[in-house]
Amino acid sequence: MKVFNLQDTAKYSKDRPYRELLFDSPNLRVLNFNFEPGQELPVHSHPSDSEVALLILEGEGVFTGGPEEIPARPGILQIMPVTEPHGLKAQTRVRLLVFIAPTL
Amino acid sequence: MKVFNLQDTAKYSKDRPYRELLFDSPNLRVLNFNFEPGQELPVHSHPSDSEVALLILEGEGVFTGGPEEIPARPGILQIMPVTEPHGLKAQTRVRLLVFIAPTL
Repeated sequence: MKVFNLQDTAKYSKDRPYRELLFDSPNLRVLNFNFEPGQELPVHSHPSDSEVALLILEGEGVFTGGPEEIPARPGILQIMPVTEPHGLKAQTRVRLLVFIAPTL
Repeated sequence: MKVFNLQDTAKYSKDRPYRELLFDSPNLRVLNFNFEPGQELPVHSHPSDSEVALLILEGEGVFTGGPEEIPARPGILQIMPVTEPHGLKAQTRVRLLVFIAPTL
């Protein structure tokens, strides 16, 4: 069993989104991304049979990649096959938790 | 793509923990449990090769099932194979998000 306190990973980088790999097994990968205002996770997709779940922990931004931008704020959870384009643009500091299953 | 607003599932039941299945595919199941004070997810395990991630969204309680109880509060994320006993006791109202990969 592993226990994480997400307070411990509230780190940011001016250069690029801060990225921390929390958990990695063949079944599940869990990542935390933290964005400064204006930083983004570029729209991307993967040719794999996996799902990705994107949970906003803090901050405000927009989910990109779909036919229209979707407001991203705390408590918004987006889930999709990784084959669907997905991304995020931060308007404030944003904390994002990502689950990928199975791991790519 | 599916988008959930976890504000919409902030529901509780006096009889038993409120449970809502948010997403279900062979790769990933996502559930939201909401507990009244004193309600619990009994310690349990499954004989499957899957991982479970338990994220506290709101409230205070304790994770049970391990050799010692672990404080459960917002931002605490527990990840383990589903073969390891896991459970939760709520002290206040607690909101829990559960990811199971792959689905049992």
